[in-house]
Amino acid sequence: MKSELDALMQARDMDAFIVFGHAENNPPMTYLTGGGHVSHATLIKKQGEESILFFGDMERDEAAKSGLKLIPYSKYDVEALFKKANRDGLLAAALRMELMLKDAGITSGRVGVYGFYDLGAIFGMLSHLQTLLPELEFIGEAREDSIFMKAMETKDETEVNRIRKMGRITTEVVDKVRDFLTSCDVRDDEVLLKRDGSPLTVGDVHSKIRLWVAERGAELPSGFIFAIGRDAGVPHSSGNPTDLMRLGQTIVFDIYPAEAGGGYYYDFTRTWSLGYATPEAQELYDQVKEIYDHLNSNFDLNAPFRNYQQMTCEYFESRGHQTLLHTKALVEGYVHSLGHGVGLNIHERPFSNLMNGDDHRLASGVVVTSEPGLYYPEKGMGFRIEDTYWVRPDGKMEILADYPYDFVLPMKKWKK
Amino acid sequence: MKSELDALMQARDMDAFIVFGHAENNPPMTYLTGGGHVSHATLIKKQGEESILFFGDMERDEAAKSGLKLIPYSKYDVEALFKKANRDGLLAAALRMELMLKDAGITSGRVGVYGFYDLGAIFGMLSHLQTLLPELEFIGEAREDSIFMKAMETKDETEVNRIRKMGRITTEVVDKVRDFLTSCDVRDDEVLLKRDGSPLTVGDVHSKIRLWVAERGAELPSGFIFAIGRDAGVPHSSGNPTDLMRLGQTIVFDIYPAEAGGGYYYDFTRTWSLGYATPEAQELYDQVKEIYDHLNSNFDLNAPFRNYQQMTCEYFESRGHQTLLHTKALVEGYVHSLGHGVGLNIHERPFSNLMNGDDHRLASGVVVTSEPGLYYPEKGMGFRIEDTYWVRPDGKMEILADYPYDFVLPMKKWKK
Repeated sequence: MKSELDALMQARDMDAFIVFGHAENNPPMTYLTGGGHVSHATLIKKQGEESILFFGDMERDEAAKSGLKLIPYSKYDVEALFKKANRDGLLAAALRMELMLKDAGITSGRVGVYGFYDLGAIFGMLSHLQTLLPELEFIGEAREDSIFMKAMETKDETEVNRIRKMGRITTEVVDKVRDFLTSCDVRDDEVLLKRDGSPLTVGDVHSKIRLWVAERGAELPSGFIFAIGRDAGVPHSSGNPTDLMRLGQTIVFDIYPAEAGGGYYYDFTRTWSLGYATPEAQELYDQVKEIYDHLNSNFDLNAPFRNYQQMTCEYFESRGHQTLLHTKALVEGYVHSLGHGVGLNIHERPFSNLMNGDDHRLASGVVVTSEPGLYYPEKGMGFRIEDTYWVRPDGKMEILADYPYDFVLPMKKWKK
Repeated sequence: MKSELDALMQARDMDAFIVFGHAENNPPMTYLTGGGHVSHATLIKKQGEESILFFGDMERDEAAKSGLKLIPYSKYDVEALFKKANRDGLLAAALRMELMLKDAGITSGRVGVYGFYDLGAIFGMLSHLQTLLPELEFIGEAREDSIFMKAMETKDETEVNRIRKMGRITTEVVDKVRDFLTSCDVRDDEVLLKRDGSPLTVGDVHSKIRLWVAERGAELPSGFIFAIGRDAGVPHSSGNPTDLMRLGQTIVFDIYPAEAGGGYYYDFTRTWSLGYATPEAQELYDQVKEIYDHLNSNFDLNAPFRNYQQMTCEYFESRGHQTLLHTKALVEGYVHSLGHGVGLNIHERPFSNLMNGDDHRLASGVVVTSEPGLYYPEKGMGFRIEDTYWVRPDGKMEILADYPYDFVLPMKKWKK
């Protein structure tokens, strides 16, 4: 939680940090400002002190919403700095940062560098700044182990409720898609038809999904997945827009909307087969559902997350599938990890990779996915079931949005 | 244009560059890959050679769409590197990058660093990499002057057509908003009403705008502006969602949709007053329109962009307004610059700031905004007119989406 940041800084001997970049699509900045459209911001925090948000004057209203201590960039004479730097933009930026750090009371020590922003510009600026301020040491941290990823790992109830709300939106949209698909007319060759009698494509369904998410005021990263047949067998294939929607083929629908502007995410997957399923597809789906349920009955408070990846690999291997337990770079079988934390990042701590340490745990307050799957692109099929769980203070794993696990969806106007 | 990248590298003595990060919301990566959902990519280009895209195996379909030379991350044994690095994630990442650079044939020289990504992770990794590969020099560039911003500055016809298409979507949505607003019933106190009889708020209009953009398959950054009264007088205020929509108040509507996933933008602003305008508002609007038209008749091929900012400041000062020509950190008057380039970045070269050099020009192939405005938050009013122009090969400035400049919008069911 956010309140842990000072302790994390202290433990890592970090005297201050700088967060660069927009307030949107920039989780560390969003985490500290609470969002809002501040597009030219910098945030500086000294250990044990309040954060200071530096902002462009035109964005004063948006900056004020953060509730942070504010300093407008106009305090610094950019024109004079630009001249002093002989029109070298990077040096001018470094000279301004020198003044900003001084205003934040930072003159020596280790300074963490964070934010999602233009790597070249910041790397170049920091090179100058290091020369200007040799008493400072600028440090980067591995993404998975940064103080932000650590602090963000456990959520307070406000955060959980925001994720839960995105879960409600997610399942509403999924249900609309289900209703839309099962209401379609079906041609003799088992292709679904639109109202105008033309074939329904994956691209048509993508458009509906985007629209129904937008109607609910949420944002949908363009990489969401609604894929059928072979593409369903490639875990991160978004789905080919020109593919026709057909009965009896597996559909993987993986959707992860976020609050507008880059806020909290929800992550969710269902696998469907319209009208009927082939016996082979049904058998594979049943295996995914079996391990999914088995995991649910075995999640323990504070257990290392990787234990459940191990359990899932062992289960699938016992059924004759390849997994990451004994094979690398898989294209068939169970080809990915079991899950990940969800918050302001769609993928965050804890992670379930087999090589992770014991610090990736199902601790009280984490929000994680469980998403076993099987992929057989050559057979034209793929399967995944995914829900997002909150590990409650009482140790129970709560699914943050309930939705049925039907595989075969009966068509309203078609019978085998 | 993209074809200039090699010459730009040569001119700057850059032997290679690395682009980090997702293919979405990451202009340098999008520019080189053509988009597509590759979320764990790295791109390396050696001067004079083809780019290589390193990708995660699960995203092989999306990576293949780039048409670039491909190397899957699975080629590198992450587990072994992690052990070799004593579980130091940053060092492991540096060890992998060392192998990737070797595979790209890069063993010495100056290597540019680009992309929008996690600053801390890349900064930390590069520190290790510099130690591993002392023959390489990693360099950052100022955002405005980077080889990418330089190459992106001039557009080919395919790019212009993509921007033009976003312009068509933009004006369609603006027209729907205009029609929606002018069709509303009006209460005795001049507040607009929804169909259910309750007052129409700015937040209601924001929702409609989001929906209508999404229906057209485009993306709308959450900082778009539809603001009324005082908020219209603060250039980057998004508008207060709880404000009521009223007659006779200035509305600033600044909308900049992009292709889904972070593609090309369009940038557009109109100022409206519903039903009637106060004489003071009408006078200020007329001034903005006068300089807007005057600029249109004076744009010259290859003229420095800042000349038109100078012209605009001089005009507004002659009418008694404050401008950046003689005052800094303005909150009233003409408080910003005239325009900026538009492409994969909403703000890119050329820029019109007074202190910019002659290299920011209205050269053939650039796409720029012209957006004079006046702001009086204490008077509760603001004004801006903005279109996006393409400087055509024949030297003409073409507005990429035509839309009328009416200030007062007559209400269909209300008369003064």
